[in-house]
Amino acid sequence: MKAAVVMGSMSDFPVVEDTIKTLKSFGVTVVARVLSAHRTPREAHEFAAGAEQNGIEVIIAAAGKAAHLAGALASCTTLPVIGLPIKSSTMDGLDSLLSTVQMPAGIPVATVAINGAENAALLAVQILSLKYAELKDKLARHKKAMAGKVLESNQKLQKEINI
Amino acid sequence: MKAAVVMGSMSDFPVVEDTIKTLKSFGVTVVARVLSAHRTPREAHEFAAGAEQNGIEVIIAAAGKAAHLAGALASCTTLPVIGLPIKSSTMDGLDSLLSTVQMPAGIPVATVAINGAENAALLAVQILSLKYAELKDKLARHKKAMAGKVLESNQKLQKEINI
Amino acid sequence: MKAAVVMGSMSDFPVVEDTIKTLKSFGVTVVARVLSAHRTPREAHEFAAGAEQNGIEVIIAAAGKAAHLAGALASCTTLPVIGLPIKSSTMDGLDSLLSTVQMPAGIPVATVAINGAENAALLAVQILSLKYAELKDKLARHKKAMAGKVLESNQKLQKEINI
Amino acid sequence: MKAAVVMGSMSDFPVVEDTIKTLKSFGVTVVARVLSAHRTPREAHEFAAGAEQNGIEVIIAAAGKAAHLAGALASCTTLPVIGLPIKSSTMDGLDSLLSTVQMPAGIPVATVAINGAENAALLAVQILSLKYAELKDKLARHKKAMAGKVLESNQKLQKEINI
Amino acid sequence: MKAAVVMGSMSDFPVVEDTIKTLKSFGVTVVARVLSAHRTPREAHEFAAGAEQNGIEVIIAAAGKAAHLAGALASCTTLPVIGLPIKSSTMDGLDSLLSTVQMPAGIPVATVAINGAENAALLAVQILSLKYAELKDKLARHKKAMAGKVLESNQKLQKEINI
Amino acid sequence: MKAAVVMGSMSDFPVVEDTIKTLKSFGVTVVARVLSAHRTPREAHEFAAGAEQNGIEVIIAAAGKAAHLAGALASCTTLPVIGLPIKSSTMDGLDSLLSTVQMPAGIPVATVAINGAENAALLAVQILSLKYAELKDKLARHKKAMAGKVLESNQKLQKEINI
Amino acid sequence: MKAAVVMGSMSDFPVVEDTIKTLKSFGVTVVARVLSAHRTPREAHEFAAGAEQNGIEVIIAAAGKAAHLAGALASCTTLPVIGLPIKSSTMDGLDSLLSTVQMPAGIPVATVAINGAENAALLAVQILSLKYAELKDKLARHKKAMAGKVLESNQKLQKEINI
Amino acid sequence: MKAAVVMGSMSDFPVVEDTIKTLKSFGVTVVARVLSAHRTPREAHEFAAGAEQNGIEVIIAAAGKAAHLAGALASCTTLPVIGLPIKSSTMDGLDSLLSTVQMPAGIPVATVAINGAENAALLAVQILSLKYAELKDKLARHKKAMAGKVLESNQKLQKEINI
Repeated sequence: MKAAVVMGSMSDFPVVEDTIKTLKSFGVTVVARVLSAHRTPREAHEFAAGAEQNGIEVIIAAAGKAAHLAGALASCTTLPVIGLPIKSSTMDGLDSLLSTVQMPAGIPVATVAINGAENAALLAVQILSLKYAELKDKLARHKKAMAGKVLESNQKLQKEINI
Repeated sequence: MKAAVVMGSMSDFPVVEDTIKTLKSFGVTVVARVLSAHRTPREAHEFAAGAEQNGIEVIIAAAGKAAHLAGALASCTTLPVIGLPIKSSTMDGLDSLLSTVQMPAGIPVATVAINGAENAALLAVQILSLKYAELKDKLARHKKAMAGKVLESNQKLQKEINI
Repeated sequence: MKAAVVMGSMSDFPVVEDTIKTLKSFGVTVVARVLSAHRTPREAHEFAAGAEQNGIEVIIAAAGKAAHLAGALASCTTLPVIGLPIKSSTMDGLDSLLSTVQMPAGIPVATVAINGAENAALLAVQILSLKYAELKDKLARHKKAMAGKVLESNQKLQKEINI
Repeated sequence: MKAAVVMGSMSDFPVVEDTIKTLKSFGVTVVARVLSAHRTPREAHEFAAGAEQNGIEVIIAAAGKAAHLAGALASCTTLPVIGLPIKSSTMDGLDSLLSTVQMPAGIPVATVAINGAENAALLAVQILSLKYAELKDKLARHKKAMAGKVLESNQKLQKEINI
Repeated sequence: MKAAVVMGSMSDFPVVEDTIKTLKSFGVTVVARVLSAHRTPREAHEFAAGAEQNGIEVIIAAAGKAAHLAGALASCTTLPVIGLPIKSSTMDGLDSLLSTVQMPAGIPVATVAINGAENAALLAVQILSLKYAELKDKLARHKKAMAGKVLESNQKLQKEINI
Repeated sequence: MKAAVVMGSMSDFPVVEDTIKTLKSFGVTVVARVLSAHRTPREAHEFAAGAEQNGIEVIIAAAGKAAHLAGALASCTTLPVIGLPIKSSTMDGLDSLLSTVQMPAGIPVATVAINGAENAALLAVQILSLKYAELKDKLARHKKAMAGKVLESNQKLQKEINI
Repeated sequence: MKAAVVMGSMSDFPVVEDTIKTLKSFGVTVVARVLSAHRTPREAHEFAAGAEQNGIEVIIAAAGKAAHLAGALASCTTLPVIGLPIKSSTMDGLDSLLSTVQMPAGIPVATVAINGAENAALLAVQILSLKYAELKDKLARHKKAMAGKVLESNQKLQKEINI
Repeated sequence: MKAAVVMGSMSDFPVVEDTIKTLKSFGVTVVARVLSAHRTPREAHEFAAGAEQNGIEVIIAAAGKAAHLAGALASCTTLPVIGLPIKSSTMDGLDSLLSTVQMPAGIPVATVAINGAENAALLAVQILSLKYAELKDKLARHKKAMAGKVLESNQKLQKEINI
């Protein structure tokens, strides 16, 4: 199972790193690329157009500002494309979010929260789990572990509060 | 192949209808439900918790205002959940969008555009196509047809303009 | 008299601490919990469903981003639920506010300002004062003290300004 | 048991009417007033200051634009004050919402959704139910009835969809 | 000639200080007050109601969040009231701005920019200059001086650029 | 006593008409102009620059979208300039409001609510009343009349509600 | 002299028609196309890549929602690209505006107002006038005519007002 | 070939510097000015009115808050005017963007992203390249270099990821 993680610029890497790590922690092979919808449009289109033949099954695209990357990739493939809006120096990520999510009819982008790097990966794993049953268990365990951490925090809180 | 379409209220049906029709046009079996995260929380949770065992492979959740439905369903399953924010009478859909997309780490919701009913269905089909190869062709044909319509519009425009 | 303070994550504690302290300063017994609408949905629902039987009379729920916690708790109880939207790293709290306040008809959430930790507590005390008359006096004294501080600031200002 | 419903202008009545009707359906005595924070500040203040002595136990304040009414009343009483932001001709209610909810520390306003007339009443009833146990049952029945309507819609949908 | 500068809280002073200094630089007598529309509503109303008799000719009111101070003062006087919205810790001042400027018909507030402390003072001076002709000259000189500074900056820039 | 009412385009007249009528009802002489900051910049500047010599004592400027008119006039006079942001076909007036109110230090614009035509006039009258004492009485009567209407509405409401 | 007007969908034509008419009124040859950045990405890219060789000197791109068209064309040419954000059924055009204007460094889009169809054309003419001096006169005459219309409106207003 | 870069205040220089440097790197002669639409309106108008005669072929105007500079210059010339909205201390640049881009019909401003200093210059160069063919090559090389940097980043990423 293989996912592509494409970022519009190397400056998105500190956020996107979490996406890659999470995917790998689920055993998903990651193809990572820096490809810009605006600076390298041909390479971006070619990457998306050839993704399926290269064994990629889901694409995650991270970009900021007028964030066209996810839409540009989605326009050239029928693979599911996940959009990860990156918060940039102005507009608090609202521009990235709207540019990513408000796609016209026909070309969906599965958008996650602004800077929601881990969720982009988890959504990809959920999608892959349709085909790769082994991921089902891992997702269930991950969900349980998350719940466990919340309950643990809760127990810690009880001690602090009761004092 | 089976998808669930859950709406928070029957008043969302005029928008959601397009989602159901599009899914059916791709041959996807549709389980449709009116279930409210707030008015029928138990039923909503139970539906999501049992969805996988009932053969559902992807869930689409449509809701407006403080649109918690997609997140509530996602909290009870590891199936991919697609959020369809519905424009309500105030705030032009911004409340629905933010309530749907800004999910905390751990529980992703694959959000499409405000009132993006057709795209919610297409995204579900793209996700299902990972497992059901026959959908690949249909998606490719659909993409081609869309492009065809644009080019047709373009040709019509040429005539109008040249006069 | 007993109030519950539920936060979606331990990271909300620095804000919520003020809520707990204020409640205690009014002599209200505080039940504090870390419970996530998304990571521990069952525990959250069970907590709300059992709250009244456990003697809880008002619930305060603090959460950020797509802040569903208050609504999720409100969906399982008829106790008044106060929503405290927490400012997160993006969107300046607007997402938390809209996700908390824009509840559909039938399930109200009594929303206070973004990060309005003290006000969440005071609102709870005002609500409890309906039943516990002794709180009336304390609220009146608190109001007077606040006014006193403003007037004191004012007097200090006069000196600074007149120089 | 007695609640006050104060509106800033008679033009708010078409929305507020729902609040009054809902309160009455729960058997709550309603004191209704048109009082403007800006045009009749003294009357507004006096009303709030005297509310408790007049047997009022919770106040609902509806206003639009720079909606100060709820805050103005809250400044003169320690009764819980519920703010109902009214959508006006510009800004889609965002101005009303922020003016109502973003109260400074010390003076909370329990804010419900923009034009959330029914919820303002239900929140008042939930608050009153702390003291008046008979409201508990009515609230539970109301909650059940709401759930029933959703499930009914759902059954209707099943028939439409299966055809 | 006398202007009042009222701030909702001593925490607004660092911004408001500029207003006071600018007024004094024009020879305007300044009455400064810390008065909260919400914590000291009676004092605020009394101050506004008595302002004219106390020789005050224009009032500047600075407040943040649900910034009702300017409107509250305006409701009790027919003196011109200038609203100075203060940026607070969330919402970037948008809440303060809308709460101040979106006043209903009948009670205007002359709103300046968020944190526009100097402009609040200059507007007051322009208003006072209707009656006090000596301010006309000072305003003209101030305007000229501002223009002079811009032109000076411009000349400095020429040197830097030409190198 | 004389006020100028300048609108950026004849299409603003239906809103601005209320400003003119209100001014006249107070006995203020009105100089009305259609002058565009962008289409007739010289005429706009000349009008503002000569306003004082022409006996104008306060200027009201109404404009929509990137509403520069008030600022443009303010840049050429030291008379107080009132900005009336007009709601246009997009952005619900937010663009007009921000373009009018967010003036840089040195050039204030006294901004009223979006489409707040009556308030623009009342603010002008309040300003003029500093010099023309006869306006004081009229303003007080106007304020009283407004309060009277609210109280009348209130009495009407009592009858409706009690039935 | 030749300009291209590209719209993302035939549904944008009612707005874009004004752009085409204005260009033609200046004697500019118009190449009009319906080309979608998302539905016909290859055709869109090819059009932009070949535009210069086809004698096109400036491109106007009109699109709504996640409006990527202008950016997509700009990514494939060094011709100046003018972005015309189209107001769609939600978000009042804010999504279109931000998606068009917030381009990353390296690929500018010259953005005009939401639905600013005429201005898109005028900007193109201004750009073309650098090379085609005959347009200078036409622009000057157009500017004068606009001013004339404002002054005419003003004269009409004088009559109405004086009565 | 000659471009003017006008900034509203010297405080904009740290952003605008990039515009000037980029223009110079393309061999464009830069006329830089500090001119305020509000503080030096006459100088601003005169500069724009005389720009063409002074050999200037395109104007870039940078300003923040109620950013009228670009519109003010555009009102006095038929040269293309590029608006560069500067992010100021409040509102995250939204005020600057809307004040710059939302120009009324007749007076376009070619707006680039908030703080998009480099793009303002590149747009000017693209415009100038219509007349000065030698810029075409430079723009093509610049575009290639940008693409090269992205591809380089991509190669670097491959090494990091594969480890």
